[in-house]
Amino acid sequence: MATDTENSAMQRALDAARTVRRTLPNPRVGCVLLAPDGTEIAVGVHRGAGTPHAEVDALTQAGDAARGATAVVTLEPCNHTGRTGPCAEALIEAGVARVVFGQIDPDRSAAGGAKTLRAAGIEVEPGVMAEEATDLNVEWTFAVTSGRPFVTWKYAATLDGLSAAPDGTSKWITSDEARRDVQKFRAESDAIVAGTGAVLADDPRLSVRDEKDIPLPYDQQPLRVVVGETKIPNYYRVFDRVAPTLLVQSRDPEVVLQKLIDNQIRHIWLEGGPRLAGAFWNAGVIDRVIGYIAPAMLGSGRAALEGEATTLADLRPIDLHDLTMVGPDIRIIGTPGRMQREDFD
Amino acid sequence: MATDTENSAMQRALDAARTVRRTLPNPRVGCVLLAPDGTEIAVGVHRGAGTPHAEVDALTQAGDAARGATAVVTLEPCNHTGRTGPCAEALIEAGVARVVFGQIDPDRSAAGGAKTLRAAGIEVEPGVMAEEATDLNVEWTFAVTSGRPFVTWKYAATLDGLSAAPDGTSKWITSDEARRDVQKFRAESDAIVAGTGAVLADDPRLSVRDEKDIPLPYDQQPLRVVVGETKIPNYYRVFDRVAPTLLVQSRDPEVVLQKLIDNQIRHIWLEGGPRLAGAFWNAGVIDRVIGYIAPAMLGSGRAALEGEATTLADLRPIDLHDLTMVGPDIRIIGTPGRMQREDFD
Repeated sequence: MATDTENSAMQRALDAARTVRRTLPNPRVGCVLLAPDGTEIAVGVHRGAGTPHAEVDALTQAGDAARGATAVVTLEPCNHTGRTGPCAEALIEAGVARVVFGQIDPDRSAAGGAKTLRAAGIEVEPGVMAEEATDLNVEWTFAVTSGRPFVTWKYAATLDGLSAAPDGTSKWITSDEARRDVQKFRAESDAIVAGTGAVLADDPRLSVRDEKDIPLPYDQQPLRVVVGETKIPNYYRVFDRVAPTLLVQSRDPEVVLQKLIDNQIRHIWLEGGPRLAGAFWNAGVIDRVIGYIAPAMLGSGRAALEGEATTLADLRPIDLHDLTMVGPDIRIIGTPGRMQREDFD
Repeated sequence: MATDTENSAMQRALDAARTVRRTLPNPRVGCVLLAPDGTEIAVGVHRGAGTPHAEVDALTQAGDAARGATAVVTLEPCNHTGRTGPCAEALIEAGVARVVFGQIDPDRSAAGGAKTLRAAGIEVEPGVMAEEATDLNVEWTFAVTSGRPFVTWKYAATLDGLSAAPDGTSKWITSDEARRDVQKFRAESDAIVAGTGAVLADDPRLSVRDEKDIPLPYDQQPLRVVVGETKIPNYYRVFDRVAPTLLVQSRDPEVVLQKLIDNQIRHIWLEGGPRLAGAFWNAGVIDRVIGYIAPAMLGSGRAALEGEATTLADLRPIDLHDLTMVGPDIRIIGTPGRMQREDFD
């Protein structure tokens, strides 16, 4: 069992990990080193691919003080050699006496750290605050266990479910506040995906900007992904130099998802339009829905989702986790459930 | 100015008036009689057409004790002789010394009570807690001042704005809790209006039932109104003996509203379907929207509202007063604003 001091250190390790937005394609990890008397020696975090893992970050800060220390880590220390050496080895070499960790590594290629540590005579305490630790990397965990990226679908619509008028006009259905909220979520994703139709219609930037509409640095931008076979002229804003852009010439969700996981994308932010969303919806590969509902109605126009329901048995429930006002708009966050139809089989 | 004792009596008069659900075609009114020393002599309420007005109800209870008393009434005492005599006269005859009232009577045919009372030497204090008093009869006030019934449109839809699947199946989109909530609102309306299409498709009862699905007594049922030219066979449930039913053979909202105000209807509860709602929406005669949004999506089907928008300038904002969960469903209550289009004229 973990001590109270270790639990509280785990909380600080989680907080530290949360300060980093994206660590693509790695998980977010925090590590706190405790001296034998329980005082904190160092706090390490992982800041993304090519940078030290959280354990190594903390060990480097601690130097010789790590000898005999307890390492409190949000994720099982890795056992494989990637761009950096395995953390399990680093902890052993540093002379750490005990390792307390949260989530058990779901990535088979990296797992086995606990076993290696134990074999070296280190005391290991797994699964401490495991739920919180797993919540830190929901999308990454999904991707490494399922073999495809986690898909968050974002839509904006009126109360009557429309995202464009019959003539195609669609801008400014939701508020400035909602659009700023979207930037926050975009920044946490690995890729922003839109169909060629939506790109041609709205010429979106698909990049992440700050409160002043200034783009984040290139290396903090998610990959922009344009999906479909229609050619987009190169003067469209999606090809500006603010962020990288990938074209996937297929609207088949399976093909798109495979292409993206091959590009080490763990979490995609699917933005539009209704037909692309419908294809993902029908394929059952939308894992989270974030909807911004403007307090307004149109009466006729283009639906936010163009799916393939034929009868009420095609109704798919959404388990709502969150309902909140964002400026004047209603924001819902939920998880699509199974097709009701399946219940009748 | 009203005294603290009178203000507190007004609060009790408002509470008493609220205990009555419908007083069709009259407003809800409460009256508290105070002795000269401020003690309460009687509380009267109006219970609906053909029953005593609140003032008379209180005076009857008080008998001789009313002499020299102060009457605290939520609405200006009426001055006209309807099914009952004018309340102003009754207050004068009973020897009341002072009358404190809330809302000034907006009904021209009944107004003038304050003047009559003053002419008889009674002290009159108008407009005390006038806002709360007016809130008690929002729909009635609207009807007597505008000359048409107040229209509340209720819809139930999925998050993608659909109320039926493409094949027309539509039952149970929202929860039991939402349907029970609807019964509560139906009970407060004077008429429940549906189109012939919705009646033929769903065979709704359009009556008010209690928690156990037992219909309220006939005289507490709102008028059921079926709108449109298609003939409904007489075995449909809308013709059961639970409540009265009126057929209006026109879908023109103006014709429907005139017919209903002629029938002394002050507040209509518009239920369906999408085309009838669309006609009212396009005519700009929906005064309140109550929407039940099921946490689910269909992807294709029939919209809850079939209006006539062509471009984004047709977007009409809805001023949300209320956003709450009713069981698993989201309930919104709001007031439609003006067409955005008008701003561009």
